[in-house]
Amino acid sequence: MSQPAAHSPGSSPAVDQGPRPSPAEEARTIVAGARMATLCTLTAGGDPWGSLVNLATTADGSPVLCVSRLAEHGRNLLADPRASLLVSVARRPEEDALAAGRVTLAGRMHRPAGEAAAAARVALLATHPGTARCLDWDDFVLWVMDVQRVRWVGGYAKMDTVSAEDYASAQPDPVAPQAAGAVRHLNEDHADALVQMVRALGGHPDAGAAVCTGADRYGIDLEVVTGHGPAEVRLTFTPAIDAPDGLRQATVQLTRRARALLGQA
Amino acid sequence: MSQPAAHSPGSSPAVDQGPRPSPAEEARTIVAGARMATLCTLTAGGDPWGSLVNLATTADGSPVLCVSRLAEHGRNLLADPRASLLVSVARRPEEDALAAGRVTLAGRMHRPAGEAAAAARVALLATHPGTARCLDWDDFVLWVMDVQRVRWVGGYAKMDTVSAEDYASAQPDPVAPQAAGAVRHLNEDHADALVQMVRALGGHPDAGAAVCTGADRYGIDLEVVTGHGPAEVRLTFTPAIDAPDGLRQATVQLTRRARALLGQA
Repeated sequence: MSQPAAHSPGSSPAVDQGPRPSPAEEARTIVAGARMATLCTLTAGGDPWGSLVNLATTADGSPVLCVSRLAEHGRNLLADPRASLLVSVARRPEEDALAAGRVTLAGRMHRPAGEAAAAARVALLATHPGTARCLDWDDFVLWVMDVQRVRWVGGYAKMDTVSAEDYASAQPDPVAPQAAGAVRHLNEDHADALVQMVRALGGHPDAGAAVCTGADRYGIDLEVVTGHGPAEVRLTFTPAIDAPDGLRQATVQLTRRARALLGQA
Repeated sequence: MSQPAAHSPGSSPAVDQGPRPSPAEEARTIVAGARMATLCTLTAGGDPWGSLVNLATTADGSPVLCVSRLAEHGRNLLADPRASLLVSVARRPEEDALAAGRVTLAGRMHRPAGEAAAAARVALLATHPGTARCLDWDDFVLWVMDVQRVRWVGGYAKMDTVSAEDYASAQPDPVAPQAAGAVRHLNEDHADALVQMVRALGGHPDAGAAVCTGADRYGIDLEVVTGHGPAEVRLTFTPAIDAPDGLRQATVQLTRRARALLGQA
């Protein structure tokens, strides 16, 4: 059903060939960080219908929605549980949306019962505290998606299909909420350290400037100016980060490794 | 099929009961200002499928898309032209998405020919100059939606259904692209004039402070502090603005009217 990846994340021209987030991890991270999604449902005539919804996710990445049974999408779901959710990385209006990450989830919505309902309510309230009142109204229905298909697009020519099993078992990147701020901090206050990292660890001893363009649990990406022109560099954290506050220590560690190597040179 | 408006824009508690944008105008304005949409298509099995697309619109508000026939949504459209587009007002990630405006359009996509194809290409290139190359590739298909259903949501409890005819004949608000900047300018540099307008023209001679919360071709909305508590005030431009650069002159006019009245008092 889904097209092959045009360009896998591992085929980047960056020198460091260490681990990158898998497509399943990319998808889980985007969904875990989202508060909103576009819900696609089916009308009584089987036509598609798009609407905006609050989104939360359970521990296995299953989307949780709270939808009025009076609204069109709510009536659609009660009549036919097939649904799709488009989840996009939050971005500023001036940014290129097609360059930003997004995930399509497709499957069937069900109304959870017992412990599953309790878990769905906890997930929803954690992301949307204001929905507490909705959950107590008869005209709102709590829905959880059984995810059957996952399609991740990371930007231009970065995309892949993810199995429902891989999606459910992948872990969202714990540092994703801090990544943009960390990247900004590295570029503003530690430009010298970035150049040292690239010279010592990134295979470009002649690097003249380096700008960090991304950070994840496994490493950082940089755009580098060298004597031979621009280059993309990937530097890997060893070990990978497993806690939300790990980016600082991991980048300090990279800096120390780089300076030790440069001191020996 | 669609639920009734829970709260029509005209029933605001604001004093000035002059004209406001109609739901059809609100919908046209949101769609005209959007560069992206979520496209909902149908898979071979009739399941809904959400994806992100570049959006443009023709002179009658018909959505124009350029979609790869190799991508899942492109294959879906070639097999079944039924589609829906969710179009949201661009907002910053920290803003409440459910408080922002959005429009659901639903209908059938067709591949335009002749003059209609030329017009669609012009519309697409005006909004997305980078798509020029796509239009010359065989694997990209130009699509135009025959809009059959329109649902506008202006935020919490502001929503209405719009007929396809009203949607097509409504004009997007010419001042929408400048409105946010104008509101900021009024609040930052002309807070005194806003209070004078509200005192003289808004029915609150005891207004102590006034903050402009929105501007459109027909007038401005304000939140006002009075001796009796907070109030919402609507002030109408006479005549309505019909050009993109008309906001400045219209607000100067309001200020002059207010000052003349206060001078007579």
